[in-house]
Order: sequence, then structure tokens, then C-alpha cells
Amino acid sequence: MIVNQKHYTTIWLNENERSVSIIDQRKLPFEFSIESFTCCNQIRLAIKEMWVRGAPLIGVAAAYGVYLASIHAPENDLIPSIRNAAQKLLHARPTAINLKFAIHGSMEKICRENSKERVIQAALDYAENLRNQEIENCRMIGIHGLDLIKTQYKKTGKPVQILTHCNAGWLACVDYGTATAPIYMAHDEGIPVHVWVDETRPRNQGARLTAWELSQHGIPNTLIADNTGGHLMQHQMVDMVIVGTDRTTITGDVANKIGTYLKALAAKDNNIPFYVAAPSTSIDWSLTDGVKQIPIEKRDEKEVLLMEGINGNTVETIQISHSECKAVNYGFDVTPARLVTSLITERGICKANEEGISCLFPEKKSC
Amino acid sequence: MIVNQKHYTTIWLNENERSVSIIDQRKLPFEFSIESFTCCNQIRLAIKEMWVRGAPLIGVAAAYGVYLASIHAPENDLIPSIRNAAQKLLHARPTAINLKFAIHGSMEKICRENSKERVIQAALDYAENLRNQEIENCRMIGIHGLDLIKTQYKKTGKPVQILTHCNAGWLACVDYGTATAPIYMAHDEGIPVHVWVDETRPRNQGARLTAWELSQHGIPNTLIADNTGGHLMQHQMVDMVIVGTDRTTITGDVANKIGTYLKALAAKDNNIPFYVAAPSTSIDWSLTDGVKQIPIEKRDEKEVLLMEGINGNTVETIQISHSECKAVNYGFDVTPARLVTSLITERGICKANEEGISCLFPEKKSC
Repeated sequence: MIVNQKHYTTIWLNENERSVSIIDQRKLPFEFSIESFTCCNQIRLAIKEMWVRGAPLIGVAAAYGVYLASIHAPENDLIPSIRNAAQKLLHARPTAINLKFAIHGSMEKICRENSKERVIQAALDYAENLRNQEIENCRMIGIHGLDLIKTQYKKTGKPVQILTHCNAGWLACVDYGTATAPIYMAHDEGIPVHVWVDETRPRNQGARLTAWELSQHGIPNTLIADNTGGHLMQHQMVDMVIVGTDRTTITGDVANKIGTYLKALAAKDNNIPFYVAAPSTSIDWSLTDGVKQIPIEKRDEKEVLLMEGINGNTVETIQISHSECKAVNYGFDVTPARLVTSLITERGICKANEEGISCLFPEKKSC
Repeated sequence: MIVNQKHYTTIWLNENERSVSIIDQRKLPFEFSIESFTCCNQIRLAIKEMWVRGAPLIGVAAAYGVYLASIHAPENDLIPSIRNAAQKLLHARPTAINLKFAIHGSMEKICRENSKERVIQAALDYAENLRNQEIENCRMIGIHGLDLIKTQYKKTGKPVQILTHCNAGWLACVDYGTATAPIYMAHDEGIPVHVWVDETRPRNQGARLTAWELSQHGIPNTLIADNTGGHLMQHQMVDMVIVGTDRTTITGDVANKIGTYLKALAAKDNNIPFYVAAPSTSIDWSLTDGVKQIPIEKRDEKEVLLMEGINGNTVETIQISHSECKAVNYGFDVTPARLVTSLITERGICKANEEGISCLFPEKKSC
């Protein structure tokens, strides 16, 4: 996507094939900074500390992590050494299933090879393929989701009002984004859209990332406190909600950034369609009950107690409550399938239930 | 209530009867600062700029404002001059009905008098009575609400988990608070309680005021991002929600701080009781449809774009998004009566509907 008129993706292999570059998302929107990593442990930390974040990007980064581990693995302990690095990577963040799938997928390919050179090549191919697949997934989600926006625009002839939570933009993926792909495509086709951007406390991915990336692309958007969406929906100021997902069950439950569930409830209460842009890489084919089965990440209370922003030209951190204040910080919540109007996948739009998902992905039925 | 082991109320008349003191709530919890006002215009600004806030306190402050206006009104233009000041005061904030009631109530008393001295006395009596009435309202809400907490505690024998939004504490009133009164009373009776405090963006009344006042009283509490309540409720970590109200219709709809509606939806979805502590001074006897009829305050976008907190010993303001970012800032939303389990009033607990309210306040039926 576009940053200062130049095309970027969130992650790429450098020409020497020995390092991987990423945009350091902790610093956005105050600084646009690119970092390069040469080992798996750096990737692990970058995922854990959220230099890179967003389910699809976490998966791709992890695949490159396994690749970098394979480069550095000693020949006499090749697979166990890579497996060891992969195991650590696996625990970097618990909720997004993409991480687990990417690591398992890569390890499976690697284990079929019998020389270090071929192992490295297999890991690289896997990472590059996954990166390309995520780009293509997002592009296809954009094409399918565009129909929904077009239909709404045809109905009223007015700018389509879309609410989104957190950042399921290109910054969460490799390019296009999941929830944002239909928005970018609509805008590029000349359909007027306006996005209500939930600030998304505590880490403010909406305020920091979504507002910024939409503005870079020239898409009208307005930042709102997370508390505001219900009021907007009550007053017919939202035509549809589109969010991403970190893990989707085969029954259509969706784990996404904390607070998504509240917006889904408000959408339901006001008969507003609630769409989840769900690439198949976010579907956990082994789970049937999101609330009971999806592990929810608990993060440092400091993310709630402190707030980072810019003061003049300096990025500063302030404490927002009294000095003895305690907080808890859950990273995600689960929106039950009954609140989801449809899933937008790379293969098309389906009902958020087992039948709908199976129709689009019949080959997964036996999993 | 208690601050550093000393008893305070949020507003009081000074001994000379020529000035009114308040706690400057914009500075809490970083600084505890008392300010004194000698004229109505200062009170108007203090309400508008939220030195004082919370529906009951806004009403009481306004009544003192009318009193201060009466002191300074010229004898040859007494009532018109006071009315002029009152009219300006009336527009300081639009949503809380307490402001309108206090001003109309005071003006009604004043207009019956025929000398400046008696006018001043009437205005003072009205303000002092309203102050006492709000203290007593909160005390009685505490007594009635205590039963709900007691019943819950008897059921499980475990600390009662209460979620609250914004600050409907003693800082929003004169003493005790509305939503917090039952909590303080339960704690003082030895019933273990724990409060989930919604941070309440954009102005962070939860993080800044509620967490602080509960901690000053020794009540266990945990700050959460506004996005978190739904997840806690899904996982049975909340026994009840208690919030305040800025305006209640006779049909039981409740306008309260933006985001309240989202918590009410989550409570309903998880069969968790959702109580609104509603002194009768918050009831607008003329309204029947909250969503359609209650005016919702729109405030400066800066409250969303900027964030204030402490950095070392310095209170600082940071910008949380990119420099071109636009925001909107609605101050309140309306929770429809169908989502409210009960109202806790000073006369007892009732259903959030016309019948329930009329049973407790039969004298208002003809209004």
C-alpha cells in the first residue's frame, strides 16, 4: 500500500536472502521506520512486542522466522535445532491461529527434506508462498467485499458509512488488509466511503494505525472513542461494520481485538450488517466453540495504565490514572457466530456457520 | 467521602456565604485542588469545562450559580438580571436534566420574593436544600442498592464483582455517589466487593476519578479498557453492572456517559443484571423516548485526539494519532429501558418503565 506516495508491504525478504525487513509498527504514526532481522529470535521478539502484529502478518513473519532459523541451524542438529526455535516462536502470541499454522506448515515441509540446503530452500519457499497467499487472500476478500459496499451505495447513493475496530488493514497483513481491502477497492472504483475508526484501547491500533493508513490512501475517516459506535448505530450513522479476525472457529465464532463483541452486539441491536473479513488462514478447523476454546491473550497491565503519544516532536509516555492503580489487559474477545452477518473469505462470502464455511472450503471438511 | 483520611464533599458554601468551593476535578487524580467561586459566570465555566461534572453535582453547582448571581444582581433589575445569568448557565451542558431542573427550581422560588434580601435568601435556601437532598438521595440509593449486593453475596459467598462505567461516584454528586453508594455501603458493612472500572474514554473519568475515589476508600478495584467488559461478562467475571444516569425518561430510558449502552447490551446478552442508580432529580418527567428526545452533547474533538496524564511529576498532554487526524466526540448515549434490569432510586428499586417509576413517585404522574 501507499506511504508518502510510495508502495510498501509490511514484510519482505532482502536481496541477499539473509535478512527480512519489516515496518516497525510500534512507532507509527509518529515515525516510519524499517527494521531488518537476521535471526529467528529477533522475529519472535518482534511478534511478541508487536513490531509486527495482525493475524496474517504474524503468520508470515513466523514463516520467515523459521526460514532464518534454518539458515543458522547447525548441520549436525538441523531439524531439532529449527524445531527448538519454532517452538519458542509458537509462544510469542497465543490467540492468532495463523502463527501456529505457519510454523506447523513450514516444519512439515522442512521435515521432508534431507540436506541443509534443501531445508533452507523449503523454509524460504514456504514463507514466500505464504506471503503471496496472504496478499492474494486480501485481494480476493477485497473483490468479494466490494460487492457489499457497491450494493449499499446503489441503495442510497450516499457515501457508505463503515465502522471498523482495531487495525485489520494492510498493516495487519502484507498488503490490502482484510477488513480494509473492500474499502480500498471501493474508494479506488470511485464509490464514496467514510470510515468510523474505533480508537481501540488499550494499544490504540485504530487511532495509530488504521486512521493513518486510511489517510495515506486518501480515504475519509473519523476517529472515535471505542464507546461511540453504539450511539452512531442507534442513529443510523453506520451502514455496515467490517472487522478482521485472529481466529475463526468452523462454527463461525470469531476472536478479534477486545471490544469487537460489543460492536457486534450493537450492530445486531440496530439491524446493521456485521461482516468479518476472514482469510482461510484465520480459520481454526479444530474448534467449534470460540468462547470456550480460543485462548485469550492477557497482556501487561501497563498497556492500560500508560499511554504513548506525541508532544511537540517527542514521543512520550504518560500515566493516565493514580500511581497505585491496578489494571487487567485482555487482548481479544470472542464474537459468537450468531452476531456475525457473514464472513468475507478469499473464496467468497458465506454464512458464519459450519455449513457456510464448508461450502467454500469443502477440502477442509475432514480436518 | 474520604480523601487522604479527611472527609470532603464536592461542593460547599464558605463561611462568609459569599463564595462556593469545589474540588477541581480536571486535575484529579494528579493534583487535589480546591477552587472558590464568587460569581455565576465562574460556575458556568466550571460546569462547561468540567471542573465539576456528574449530573447531580452539575445541578447543585447551578443552584449555587443562581445564588451567586442573585448576590451581584442590581436591585433595580433584580429578577431579569438573575434570569439572564441563569439563561447562560442553562446552556453550559445539554444532556443532564439536573441542570435545567435546578435552575428552573431556583428561579421559581426567587420569583415569589419581593426584595433583594429575600431573593438572595431564597436562592441560597434552594441551593442548600438541593445539596442536602442530593446527599440524602445518594444515601438512600446506597441503602436500597446494598440489598442487591447483599443478596448476591449470600448466593455465592464470594466477593461481589461489580462493573461500572464513567464516574457516578461521590465526585459526580455531593457525597456517596449514585452508582457507588451501594458499593461503599457494602464495603463498610464488611461485604467483600471488587469493582471493574471502565476507563471511560475520551475523558477517562473511570481511570482518573472512579479508580481514585474507590482506592481512597479502600475498595478493591481494577481498571479496564472500555472494550473489556463484554469479555468479562462472557466469562462470568461480572455479577452486576451499576451505572449512573444524566437523564432518565419516564419510560425508563437512560442517557449516561457514551459507551453505557454497549455495556447494557453485553449484560443483557449474558443475563447479568444491569442497574441504573437514578435519583429522581435525574428523571425528565416530560420525555418518553430517550433515543429520539434526549439531546446528546457533542464536545471538542480534541478530547479524543489528545490525552492527558502524568509523566514523572508533570501533567502532560500528548496527541495519540497522526497530526491530520479528525475525530468526533459524543458525550452520552441512550440505553433503552428494555436493557435496564431496575432503577435504584432514593425511594426504592423499581422496573425501568412508566409503571415502576410512577409507583415510587405517584405525585409526579400528572407532570
